[in-house]
Amino acid sequence: MRTVEWKNHALHLIDQRILPSRFEVIAYRDYHDVTKAITDMVVRGAPAIGVTAAFGMALAAQQSPAKDRDSLLIDLDHAKEILDEARPTAVNLKWATDRVMKYARGLVLKNVDDIRSSVLAEAQKMADEDVEINIRMAKHGAALIHDGDSVLHHCNTGALAVVDYGTALGVIRMAHEQGKKIHVFVDETRPRLQGARLTAWELKNLNIPFDLIADTAAGHFMQSGKVKSVFVGADRITANGDVANKIGTYQLAVLAKENGIPFYSVAPTSTVDLSLPDGSHIPIEERPMDEVLNLQFNGERVTPEGITARNPAFDVTPNKYVTAIVTENGVVYPPFEEGLRKAVQS
Amino acid sequence: MRTVEWKNHALHLIDQRILPSRFEVIAYRDYHDVTKAITDMVVRGAPAIGVTAAFGMALAAQQSPAKDRDSLLIDLDHAKEILDEARPTAVNLKWATDRVMKYARGLVLKNVDDIRSSVLAEAQKMADEDVEINIRMAKHGAALIHDGDSVLHHCNTGALAVVDYGTALGVIRMAHEQGKKIHVFVDETRPRLQGARLTAWELKNLNIPFDLIADTAAGHFMQSGKVKSVFVGADRITANGDVANKIGTYQLAVLAKENGIPFYSVAPTSTVDLSLPDGSHIPIEERPMDEVLNLQFNGERVTPEGITARNPAFDVTPNKYVTAIVTENGVVYPPFEEGLRKAVQS
Repeated sequence: MRTVEWKNHALHLIDQRILPSRFEVIAYRDYHDVTKAITDMVVRGAPAIGVTAAFGMALAAQQSPAKDRDSLLIDLDHAKEILDEARPTAVNLKWATDRVMKYARGLVLKNVDDIRSSVLAEAQKMADEDVEINIRMAKHGAALIHDGDSVLHHCNTGALAVVDYGTALGVIRMAHEQGKKIHVFVDETRPRLQGARLTAWELKNLNIPFDLIADTAAGHFMQSGKVKSVFVGADRITANGDVANKIGTYQLAVLAKENGIPFYSVAPTSTVDLSLPDGSHIPIEERPMDEVLNLQFNGERVTPEGITARNPAFDVTPNKYVTAIVTENGVVYPPFEEGLRKAVQS
Repeated sequence: MRTVEWKNHALHLIDQRILPSRFEVIAYRDYHDVTKAITDMVVRGAPAIGVTAAFGMALAAQQSPAKDRDSLLIDLDHAKEILDEARPTAVNLKWATDRVMKYARGLVLKNVDDIRSSVLAEAQKMADEDVEINIRMAKHGAALIHDGDSVLHHCNTGALAVVDYGTALGVIRMAHEQGKKIHVFVDETRPRLQGARLTAWELKNLNIPFDLIADTAAGHFMQSGKVKSVFVGADRITANGDVANKIGTYQLAVLAKENGIPFYSVAPTSTVDLSLPDGSHIPIEERPMDEVLNLQFNGERVTPEGITARNPAFDVTPNKYVTAIVTENGVVYPPFEEGLRKAVQS
């Protein structure tokens, strides 16, 4: 199934908090629950969050008791405000709710049930587009991976981070499907371990050779010449090409540059926020400290009781460390300002 | 008690594998068991390993059935070979067994029991010297920390990594004891989590303010200007000032340099290996992959079954990223070649 899928009058999400030990799907029929699912990271990954929020809007339309168009739009506006607050950093969430809202406002329909159906159809269209966009990105990006390469990958950017296929991991998957012999260094991505849990699970299922490494070992493998390129996703890319992405991305980018290794961010143009001039304007979510503190090892809690942690969920990689940004409309090289504008508009 | 302590005719080691959830001390009376304790990381930290190996030699002398000086020296030589293989990267181990061996050979005693007693006394002297050396290092290094500073610390270099007090963490502790208001960013240090387990435990007990962070967040806090200096220990420092230390050190050093933050390695001169011209000659231990794979989260194993990992335990930081090396004989600045030679000889 898709990571984000509409069926039987409900939104179905794969519960990513418990993978790979258990595979469970949760059905949602209330957009408030969808908001919470995004906040609690049942679903994560910028593109997956975007499409989930679009279906959240479709649910809000169905939940609304409105009997006329204007009342329904007011209820949708209210739902959008709630959904937009679910997580602050990924721009795809707001991009998706903006698109649904604009679409709903633009409808010439008067019957509220027709509007409800159309909003759902638009969300479904966004889900289908997401898959198609991922394939296009993967084809553009796969040309950057050469036969025999070992590549380093951060967090999870596979099918679980989107509706299906993947962004950065989609590029790696496409290179593999093209018959290139590749190997992936999968970093764990503390604190939530999306690499150790989700990327390892996806690569294993895809039969793509990989080794898991601690986040502390990434620099060593770059320094020792084993890593030929680094691939990451993005949660928001500003007009100048600064990339907000999962915490740990910035340091990988610095290390890649220091070692002469190309560093690629793979993201759909819905991730590009041309309204922000640079990364200093991106809000960085700080998540509960328990995500850092509740680690277990050998069956016992690792950390002493009563201590504190800092837990920023994202960081910003300045554009000078980014070799290229892979979008569904092509690979954008510096200067990013012009290239990103063209990619978004094409 | 000390981390490494001789009492009641046995070597006592704090079992660092189960801290902080349990505090247990293991008594050793056989040098083969001491060797295994070093390999299994009951005891870790280059200076602690060195003194432990010295006591291992003392145990070997007591275990030896030799009735004459020459036979005892042969048995000691054999024990040294076994102890030296316990872990390959930290040079303090071989430094300590070399010193005991040289000391034993130099003795003019003929009675083997007198030799046994003298070897034990020498090991005890090394333990006492280690504490005194740590205090001297801490005083030299504390001058590098200013009132109000937040400093970043990697792995564990506190009392648990030495006989008592600490190397890099000793410097931080001394600055605190001098009344400076300081704060420490403690990184977890995957895979064995010495930061999350041991450093957090020591700092909590010392009432030094700190926050635990994921290894992925170190770069972000440097980039955002919060980190004023970085302090790490060392497992081997070559003649040119290259520093082998816990995996993850290299990337912290690169990030510090990129952000204009001073990067300090704190280590006794017993860590300096003048026989090696540079870090490319240092053997890097790769430990069992299960250290990466057996992580738990929310009560469940994190990683899928049947996957592989790479687990280098150390990396090498080229001297160009090192601001200074703090030894018991003073702070050594570049060019390190000359300064380290003087520090070792003084």
